[in-house]
Amino acid sequence: MKLTKAVITAAGPNQNQVPLQHLVDLDGDEKTALQIIIEEVVAAGIEAIAIVTQPGDREAYAEAAGQFAEFLQFLEQPRPRGYGEALHRAAVFVGDDAFVHLVSDHLYISGETRRCTQQLVETARKERCPVSAVQATHEAMLPYYGTIGGRRLEGSDILYLVESVVEKPTPTEAEQSLLIPGLRAGRYLCMFGMHVLTPVVMEILAAQLAAEPDQRLSLSPALSVLATRERYLAMELNGARYNIGVKYGLLTAQLALALNGRERDEVLGRIIELLATQRQGGA
Amino acid sequence: MKLTKAVITAAGPNQNQVPLQHLVDLDGDEKTALQIIIEEVVAAGIEAIAIVTQPGDREAYAEAAGQFAEFLQFLEQPRPRGYGEALHRAAVFVGDDAFVHLVSDHLYISGETRRCTQQLVETARKERCPVSAVQATHEAMLPYYGTIGGRRLEGSDILYLVESVVEKPTPTEAEQSLLIPGLRAGRYLCMFGMHVLTPVVMEILAAQLAAEPDQRLSLSPALSVLATRERYLAMELNGARYNIGVKYGLLTAQLALALNGRERDEVLGRIIELLATQRQGGA
Repeated sequence: MKLTKAVITAAGPNQNQVPLQHLVDLDGDEKTALQIIIEEVVAAGIEAIAIVTQPGDREAYAEAAGQFAEFLQFLEQPRPRGYGEALHRAAVFVGDDAFVHLVSDHLYISGETRRCTQQLVETARKERCPVSAVQATHEAMLPYYGTIGGRRLEGSDILYLVESVVEKPTPTEAEQSLLIPGLRAGRYLCMFGMHVLTPVVMEILAAQLAAEPDQRLSLSPALSVLATRERYLAMELNGARYNIGVKYGLLTAQLALALNGRERDEVLGRIIELLATQRQGGA
Repeated sequence: MKLTKAVITAAGPNQNQVPLQHLVDLDGDEKTALQIIIEEVVAAGIEAIAIVTQPGDREAYAEAAGQFAEFLQFLEQPRPRGYGEALHRAAVFVGDDAFVHLVSDHLYISGETRRCTQQLVETARKERCPVSAVQATHEAMLPYYGTIGGRRLEGSDILYLVESVVEKPTPTEAEQSLLIPGLRAGRYLCMFGMHVLTPVVMEILAAQLAAEPDQRLSLSPALSVLATRERYLAMELNGARYNIGVKYGLLTAQLALALNGRERDEVLGRIIELLATQRQGGA
């Protein structure tokens, strides 16, 4: 499976500032979230990246990409027609090749030396089919994620055959159609914001866009169709996702980076100092 | 003392993204650093704010100011000629009035119900003279701050008569001329990034700029001259400053806001959860 392209979507309404935020990474280097995301895919062998933004964001993103700007091609989503439509803007860029797809409001910390995207790409290359990264997620978080239904692949602890994908299911929907044997009670396999997809997804999105030209289009319905058209796997990566587009998401991601990184002791010291020197009455 | 204007400087090289960063404030509301800074001065009764930026940053700052954009007048520093020159760009805006001056890379948490700027403004109104906020600071931090020399005002625990101001003094300089009787050993009164100044400062800056037209100009030399021209006080506020322009500065400020704010328990829970779920080998 040739895998040299990546598509990053960053066109979500009110989310366009998220990849521009500044953080300190695991190594203690100051970076934008966008730089950290691009590093994920570059470290997995990707050579060309298309980023889909709102109109007018190109300059700020190019600046935030820093030394990685040369990897980027910019595409625009002129109107907010949904995540699926944003991804489809990269159909020409993708052409006939499989591609990596990452969202722009998540950061990842791997539990091993291979970064998360690299784990996923190696599996896709070996299995020669689309693979979405998933994470066993408590049912309370279902309103935030696309969720898969399917079954564990025989002989594997971490791979699943995807049979359906439902966007933000209700607990009842989830219980009826998305239970996965072998997961802890009340857990479902929710999307991790990281995929290896085939151009078939672009065909499916094109058909859905043509059928409903005035609707906003999510990605989950297209992935659900993909599961009927191709062998399509889900993979539990050795790592964790951090949604930086939600309240306290940046804080949580920064703390996770710092506490798992080289400067853990310094940051722990700061936390303890802050806990020891509470202001009085300021709140 | 009429005090209805504020000047915020945000033109420092490589610092222009700092006020655009997103945080959650003490009340749990998501804001940009710029919005939090503007709230400081608006809460102190300021009605008009001039912000001095690098060329081309106006649009991003207006967006980051949100509902406060109407308070803002934008001024540009065409070339990076230093902090003092940036402040002097607001000389016409200031005119004959005293004004509040804040830097754009610090956030403040008050130790009482009055915000930090309000504490300072009330003192300036009462004392009818320029007042700089200061914080007793360990000598190891001298390389980062303007530092005052002077003596405690009789009958006050928190006010000092400023006799000199030295920009980033060496420990030797500090020990020779900036020791303040009554402070803990090894502590100096360093600038807090918050001032009430008189238009005399603009005159002094103009003279210094004319004398050294090719030099970058700091603010401390002008404040040192101010101390010879007017009664000029320094005030230890009941609160703390957080420099968000340094490494881990945003993290520290966000933690301080969260741990002193309404959502302390939720954030403490996240810290504990992160400490309990370390990734392995990710760094």
